[in-house]
Amino acid sequence: MVGYSFMGRVHSHAWRNVAAFFDTPYRPVLAAIAGRTGPDVRAAADRLGWATAETDWKDLIHRDDVHLVDICTPGDSHAEIAVAALAAGKHVLCEKPLANTLAEAEAMAAAADTARAHGMRAMLGFNYRRVPAVALARRLVAAGRLGTIRHVRAHYLQDWLVDPESPLVWRLDKERAGTGALGDIGAHIIDTTQFITGDLLTGVTALTETFVKERPHPDGTARGPVTVDDAAVFLGRTEGGALATFEATRFATGRKNALRIEVNGSAGSLAFDFEAMNELWFCDAADDLAGFQRILVTEADHPYAGAWWPPGHLLGCEHTFTHEVADLLTAIGTGTDPDPSFADGLQVQRVLTAVADSAAGGGWIPIGGS
Amino acid sequence: MVGYSFMGRVHSHAWRNVAAFFDTPYRPVLAAIAGRTGPDVRAAADRLGWATAETDWKDLIHRDDVHLVDICTPGDSHAEIAVAALAAGKHVLCEKPLANTLAEAEAMAAAADTARAHGMRAMLGFNYRRVPAVALARRLVAAGRLGTIRHVRAHYLQDWLVDPESPLVWRLDKERAGTGALGDIGAHIIDTTQFITGDLLTGVTALTETFVKERPHPDGTARGPVTVDDAAVFLGRTEGGALATFEATRFATGRKNALRIEVNGSAGSLAFDFEAMNELWFCDAADDLAGFQRILVTEADHPYAGAWWPPGHLLGCEHTFTHEVADLLTAIGTGTDPDPSFADGLQVQRVLTAVADSAAGGGWIPIGGS
Amino acid sequence: MVGYSFMGRVHSHAWRNVAAFFDTPYRPVLAAIAGRTGPDVRAAADRLGWATAETDWKDLIHRDDVHLVDICTPGDSHAEIAVAALAAGKHVLCEKPLANTLAEAEAMAAAADTARAHGMRAMLGFNYRRVPAVALARRLVAAGRLGTIRHVRAHYLQDWLVDPESPLVWRLDKERAGTGALGDIGAHIIDTTQFITGDLLTGVTALTETFVKERPHPDGTARGPVTVDDAAVFLGRTEGGALATFEATRFATGRKNALRIEVNGSAGSLAFDFEAMNELWFCDAADDLAGFQRILVTEADHPYAGAWWPPGHLLGCEHTFTHEVADLLTAIGTGTDPDPSFADGLQVQRVLTAVADSAAGGGWIPIGGS
Amino acid sequence: MVGYSFMGRVHSHAWRNVAAFFDTPYRPVLAAIAGRTGPDVRAAADRLGWATAETDWKDLIHRDDVHLVDICTPGDSHAEIAVAALAAGKHVLCEKPLANTLAEAEAMAAAADTARAHGMRAMLGFNYRRVPAVALARRLVAAGRLGTIRHVRAHYLQDWLVDPESPLVWRLDKERAGTGALGDIGAHIIDTTQFITGDLLTGVTALTETFVKERPHPDGTARGPVTVDDAAVFLGRTEGGALATFEATRFATGRKNALRIEVNGSAGSLAFDFEAMNELWFCDAADDLAGFQRILVTEADHPYAGAWWPPGHLLGCEHTFTHEVADLLTAIGTGTDPDPSFADGLQVQRVLTAVADSAAGGGWIPIGGS
Repeated sequence: MVGYSFMGRVHSHAWRNVAAFFDTPYRPVLAAIAGRTGPDVRAAADRLGWATAETDWKDLIHRDDVHLVDICTPGDSHAEIAVAALAAGKHVLCEKPLANTLAEAEAMAAAADTARAHGMRAMLGFNYRRVPAVALARRLVAAGRLGTIRHVRAHYLQDWLVDPESPLVWRLDKERAGTGALGDIGAHIIDTTQFITGDLLTGVTALTETFVKERPHPDGTARGPVTVDDAAVFLGRTEGGALATFEATRFATGRKNALRIEVNGSAGSLAFDFEAMNELWFCDAADDLAGFQRILVTEADHPYAGAWWPPGHLLGCEHTFTHEVADLLTAIGTGTDPDPSFADGLQVQRVLTAVADSAAGGGWIPIGGS
Repeated sequence: MVGYSFMGRVHSHAWRNVAAFFDTPYRPVLAAIAGRTGPDVRAAADRLGWATAETDWKDLIHRDDVHLVDICTPGDSHAEIAVAALAAGKHVLCEKPLANTLAEAEAMAAAADTARAHGMRAMLGFNYRRVPAVALARRLVAAGRLGTIRHVRAHYLQDWLVDPESPLVWRLDKERAGTGALGDIGAHIIDTTQFITGDLLTGVTALTETFVKERPHPDGTARGPVTVDDAAVFLGRTEGGALATFEATRFATGRKNALRIEVNGSAGSLAFDFEAMNELWFCDAADDLAGFQRILVTEADHPYAGAWWPPGHLLGCEHTFTHEVADLLTAIGTGTDPDPSFADGLQVQRVLTAVADSAAGGGWIPIGGS
Repeated sequence: MVGYSFMGRVHSHAWRNVAAFFDTPYRPVLAAIAGRTGPDVRAAADRLGWATAETDWKDLIHRDDVHLVDICTPGDSHAEIAVAALAAGKHVLCEKPLANTLAEAEAMAAAADTARAHGMRAMLGFNYRRVPAVALARRLVAAGRLGTIRHVRAHYLQDWLVDPESPLVWRLDKERAGTGALGDIGAHIIDTTQFITGDLLTGVTALTETFVKERPHPDGTARGPVTVDDAAVFLGRTEGGALATFEATRFATGRKNALRIEVNGSAGSLAFDFEAMNELWFCDAADDLAGFQRILVTEADHPYAGAWWPPGHLLGCEHTFTHEVADLLTAIGTGTDPDPSFADGLQVQRVLTAVADSAAGGGWIPIGGS
Repeated sequence: MVGYSFMGRVHSHAWRNVAAFFDTPYRPVLAAIAGRTGPDVRAAADRLGWATAETDWKDLIHRDDVHLVDICTPGDSHAEIAVAALAAGKHVLCEKPLANTLAEAEAMAAAADTARAHGMRAMLGFNYRRVPAVALARRLVAAGRLGTIRHVRAHYLQDWLVDPESPLVWRLDKERAGTGALGDIGAHIIDTTQFITGDLLTGVTALTETFVKERPHPDGTARGPVTVDDAAVFLGRTEGGALATFEATRFATGRKNALRIEVNGSAGSLAFDFEAMNELWFCDAADDLAGFQRILVTEADHPYAGAWWPPGHLLGCEHTFTHEVADLLTAIGTGTDPDPSFADGLQVQRVLTAVADSAAGGGWIPIGGS
């Protein structure tokens, strides 16, 4: 694994525990973790359960006892590490977003195609696909329970930048992060809605805004410019003829991690909010009462839920990562492609690029295919 | 009163009951109701409590015992009746939308200005301003409890057109209705959000869609084209620098009358859903716990609520109309301008026109001033 | 009508409006209202729409132009007025509780039986039966959608006595009110749950408490003892074998009028909260998803709702009274017995008496039949 | 650890992960797991991460490399194992309920007292105390935010026995389980409410019921009697003068794990539902708006939450066990008594016994002290 902050911690948790709950073809051994600062990475290895530590990811990806590389760094290093790891004959799991630029994303998708021919698997970490309620939503759509999709309505609302004195962290720096709310959380609602509906966006029109233009540096010495968006709102159309609306913001006071999705179809509707992530709301228009029912997605026959606890015993956010690595191990074992692929990530990157272009004054921007 | 379908029924209810709950300077006498079909209008008069019936609204507006004309007809006749009634020296209450075209709306606003000089008052019926929770929301914003507004997010979701066999009623005919979901329910969310925030839209970009292109005529004989939008989605910016997103649709399966508004400010947030119209949700960022609190807006010191029942005894949708006529009677009695004015309605009409222009391919459309 | 405070106001509203919405066999004329204080009752008559006022209810019940007497006074006068009105050949609508004592209640039920033989109808005002969601709940139970009832769980939570300085009003005086929370709001949850399930209580065990023993008199001069219960909690069994739990309190801080009922059966469950009175929650165990669905009870085929507005346009608390008088007028017109009868009220009075006896140290108290 | 079914799995998860999130004075080594069936316990050891397996718990508790024994067996073996383990000089964590009988519970509490003198710590596993929202609730009560407690209202609703063909598992056998819903889930709401309020029960009156008297044996060959309660409902009074109502049932169709608690005090109220375990609802009567606010208990300054993820990233049920072992390790390290103690468990056992005695016809049963 490369990286040991939030994503590194939660991925470590997934690798450490997956075999206790899922019958995977491989039982992961936590061989090595890499990071730039020696003492810090050794402390992280010790705390998170990794056997050894490396200070250069290039050493890590060439170790013989490493068969899979999990990339948990900021987006600007994804392409270099992933392409090199695949070339070194390792399977790769890469955190989202795939990359910070379209060119990098295209190179990564090409590298994944090449590696696949040699039996290497590449998977992108859009973990929200593995929320049981989201997976159940997809199952209901796939079974035709919603009919023709008419509306997709997705928000990802956070509030950690409301305070104008909140510091200028790397996520607010265009060089490191690519974009702001757009790529960080907007990417999730693009992927998750397309995953649920199976219906891709064909074009968008967008507005973005940076409400607080300058913020203090983390060391407190001076102020610097915020070079990414604080919020992005956009409208789209899909291949299937639906209207889609999106909003990603870090300025929704009181909303902590409100990834909200509602889908309206000719036969039914779905609603989900990550702040109540164990619940899926479903309305079946053909039901004689036709209200929205609140489904607690913890039953044995619900996606992933049966591997854990009895009904009504809730799961948390880190379970989505455990499901992710379980599915990846299964894909490697069965020689199938894990989902989402780097190509899926490239398509999301195309949407993000179109949103940014539209917000820059481009009006309606079609989403190009591959 | 002119008209006796849904709006006529609910306005009659308001006139019949206002004096039992509010200390208004005038006590309304339900003098006469007008409609085109004699037997029907006489039956409506009898049922709804009007003393007499007229079959021509021109007769009604010239009766000496009529001091106020309440216009509850479709939008295509608003301008003619309102201008004539004001010219005849009557106060006017006109249902929304103000008119079907910008030209008509401008003429009405001008007529209201002229009439004001002679002591006549003109009020537009955006009844959602008089939901106690909405009025409380405005009070909280006005008191600075939200700080600087960053986001406005408004949906008006209905589902009465989901069935493709639902008939081609007048609301689906561009000649009668002007637009579809846009003017019928989109107008409400434009007005209500601007009312709550006091912050006007400066421009929009929009998409509209007609999902079902043809429907059977009400008599069942043949199919005809739907000439208005089924759904309208749009993004905007406000004078105060907020991002605003709007969605109005008649295709949100399972949502019956979900007028939903969320406002995020630098100091707090508000949320409202008309399907739970007695509740307002408020988050105060400065509170030590800072959750969203559910306020049941039925306390004696809440707007309008004190005139009715003890706390916790809910109000329904028709109360908003009773509040409307109470405020109009008070405005007439005190010689002040009722709110919303025809000028407010004209501004909303300008937004609707900009949305329609943008959806027709115009990209970003600024909202012109007067 | 006798009485013109909260109940008088809301009953007047019902009589004034019922004919505009329901096709009743009679169209009510608001002939006269009675109260002890001349100027007050005349002002109330004027405001509430009554043609004349009387200062002695005995005069009112003997007027030839009065055919129905509506009793909205405190419980200690119900028996005298109702028995006299029935004897005078008038139909009677009496507010709940039927009476303050079992003896009075028995006399009233007997008087109603006698009067029925002469064509007079007597109805008790348990208005919550006429909430559309409650009536729909009963319909679902009657249709077998819940199977065998296992649990009934009912709370009526208010908070208007939390402040120890809240004055010693008549509702806190045993002489006038009979009991406190028990008879005032506990009676409602007893009646409403028995109505929904059709399953009568066979015995109870109970605790009551008066948290604040003394309060200031309304004139502020001195303190006096609170002679009724502030809260009553009780457990029961039903004829059908269910366990039932009840709680009625005026000390549930933050709960304004939370009449909450949940019923669990072998085939499904129901939940209701009057603070969201337009919603009924229903779980069908046989459904493949089996969540609780939120039904907005405003559809044309829902009880009472079709008489009002389009779907999604909420009703308020006073509609329950309008439904009550509509049903009473229909019963009179069709010569059938309105529901609930005085006998139903007597049965509730027996439960209340058993609760009080148990709380006084009696342990398990069976509910006697008639 | 002794036992490897549901509780064994979730406790193993806690031991495996605690050191990655909490700075505990000891880092647990998963030395050995015990169970009766050799192949099964070895498979469990392998899957759950234990180094070795034992088929006799007596061997386990005498191993030198075992310093702490975690008892996850059914209640009938708790006393024997716990007393022996403490005598063998091991710290003990014991799953709830403490024991199946009052005599066993008293022996265990005495053994814990004796062992404490020798530096051994004994802790009981009422895990719901470690839900962050529950711990925050206790913090608010302790800080006086609720004032004097007036009402405690607690339900634990499950539905896994609704189907009469659900088999006769050990939890339905009085010999193994002691009681049914009462001890299994009723014990949790007794402990959790007493923990939140700090206010102990002084007496109860109760009803219990077994709705389905016979069920098929798990092997399907025949039917046998259900010898425990399906549901228990009881009323109580507390030392502080509050009224308390409790309901524990396995027949609440559609409720999966609804541990619901509401506490009403003179200054505020709290509400919690384990089916939305990351939320706490709090009403502050002194707030100018005084609604119930929904607090998402995932902030860094909330109990336990800071050890995990950023705000809004929910926790699941197993986190409560990780918190439990973290607190136990800290108590051992600092030489303080962990909470809840065996004495706390004994007090809960006294309440359970009183409930059972009352349900057997005993009316009001006071809760004895130690």
